[in-house]
Amino acid sequence: MPNFAIIGSGAMGSAVAKRLIDHGATVLTYLEGRSEQTIARAKAAGMVPVGRQELTKAELILSIVPPAEAIKVAELVADISSAMSAPPPFIDLNAIAPKTMQALAARFEGSSVEVLDGAIIGGPPVTGKSGPTIYISGDIAERSRPLEDCGLRIRRLDGPLGAASALKMCYAGINKGFVGLGTAMLLAASRSGAAESLKAELSESLPDIDRRLSGSIPDMYPKAYRWVAEMQEIADFLGENDPAATIFRGMADVFSRMANDVEGSRVLVEQLDEIIGRPGS
Amino acid sequence: MPNFAIIGSGAMGSAVAKRLIDHGATVLTYLEGRSEQTIARAKAAGMVPVGRQELTKAELILSIVPPAEAIKVAELVADISSAMSAPPPFIDLNAIAPKTMQALAARFEGSSVEVLDGAIIGGPPVTGKSGPTIYISGDIAERSRPLEDCGLRIRRLDGPLGAASALKMCYAGINKGFVGLGTAMLLAASRSGAAESLKAELSESLPDIDRRLSGSIPDMYPKAYRWVAEMQEIADFLGENDPAATIFRGMADVFSRMANDVEGSRVLVEQLDEIIGRPGS
Repeated sequence: MPNFAIIGSGAMGSAVAKRLIDHGATVLTYLEGRSEQTIARAKAAGMVPVGRQELTKAELILSIVPPAEAIKVAELVADISSAMSAPPPFIDLNAIAPKTMQALAARFEGSSVEVLDGAIIGGPPVTGKSGPTIYISGDIAERSRPLEDCGLRIRRLDGPLGAASALKMCYAGINKGFVGLGTAMLLAASRSGAAESLKAELSESLPDIDRRLSGSIPDMYPKAYRWVAEMQEIADFLGENDPAATIFRGMADVFSRMANDVEGSRVLVEQLDEIIGRPGS
Repeated sequence: MPNFAIIGSGAMGSAVAKRLIDHGATVLTYLEGRSEQTIARAKAAGMVPVGRQELTKAELILSIVPPAEAIKVAELVADISSAMSAPPPFIDLNAIAPKTMQALAARFEGSSVEVLDGAIIGGPPVTGKSGPTIYISGDIAERSRPLEDCGLRIRRLDGPLGAASALKMCYAGINKGFVGLGTAMLLAASRSGAAESLKAELSESLPDIDRRLSGSIPDMYPKAYRWVAEMQEIADFLGENDPAATIFRGMADVFSRMANDVEGSRVLVEQLDEIIGRPGS
């Protein structure tokens, strides 16, 4: 029976663990210093809390944490693996830029840990649905095979370390950038007295875009504060030589304005809801 | 039989004229100083070239020219109408920002010309199709009714002078901004070794977005040079207080880079074509 370790038991980490456990795996985790809520969620998913050194008894160690914690987790894993001759491979599955992934891998220099770059696209696993898709780049030895055998949808990318992280950035740039674009233009139309006509024109001449905006703008409200950092990360990923970096710096500010509005007066939320709620003709 | 004047006989102006003429109208135009090509196109559409003062014999004067010429045309119309007690109304149909529209209307101060703000959404009229849609704001007296009677699709906006121009900006911001976003992220994926996976993921989880990008990116290549100015106009429209203005300054640079590539090495065009051409799985 396969034995994994997952560091991170947030909504995504615990749901990935549950999928693996439902397929017969044992999933170790490390909970020292975590909140009661996190401990409760890990236990509810069936994860087994162990001491930090015991994490290395797994055949694969996964990191599923907020982007800002990714390096710290890698350092912990490098530390506990340092004395081992055959430590388990380590897969970072976090939404970090390829450059951050390179810096993370550098923490393992001189050790025998195989470091892999992964990215999760889609929401947390839900019983009865096959997603999300987990992309892993440079996995020539198919270290991720046991995850596949335990019910996760894995795709191996034929790219260098960082390619999976880049994929995640590009996908988010299109998917979330599109929401930012729509949000900005609907608000501009609203303050110019053109909202009703814009909605009617979109529903007629760009019905697919209209449908997607109407669904994804309200979904964005509670996430806007998180998307600010994600947009900045995409701008960094694109780099100073790519003019598109400017687009994402603007996107970060658009979502920051939305996040403030969501927590505050909700004037913008009301304007958007009014446009989206109008009948399309 | 209605009698219109259209200043501008480019692809759009001449096609609008033809639609009106096909419905029994006479369309006057002013061709002094225009190129042979323009004169030939106007005549092919059935437009009647007249002297500038004779334009005022129409019951409605329309301006359909490149954005940079809109003010000059308005000044011409203000000039020929100045001595008249009941000059024909004037409709500006150009892709200009609301602020430019206000400046244009100011050229008629002290005259009795009724100035209306319009915008054309969609390509030039084609026999057998009902589009494009022409939006006109503030047309309380329904001056645009004769255009409707002669086969054009007219929508009157219940908004101030500038609302139709704003609508055009917002629509273009979504429609063309989306193409800019997709272009930027597909190119980033291409240089990161993640293009194939990105295309596969898009076609599976965002099939409507994938389809639209695959169609609209190649359509953009020959227009990229024109879109640079359009994106800058949208940034100006949004104004310094709107963080989304930054998005469109970035978009202008993305299309500028594409325009240079299209005329030059076509390295980016090839990268995009390769991604778009890949089978989606």
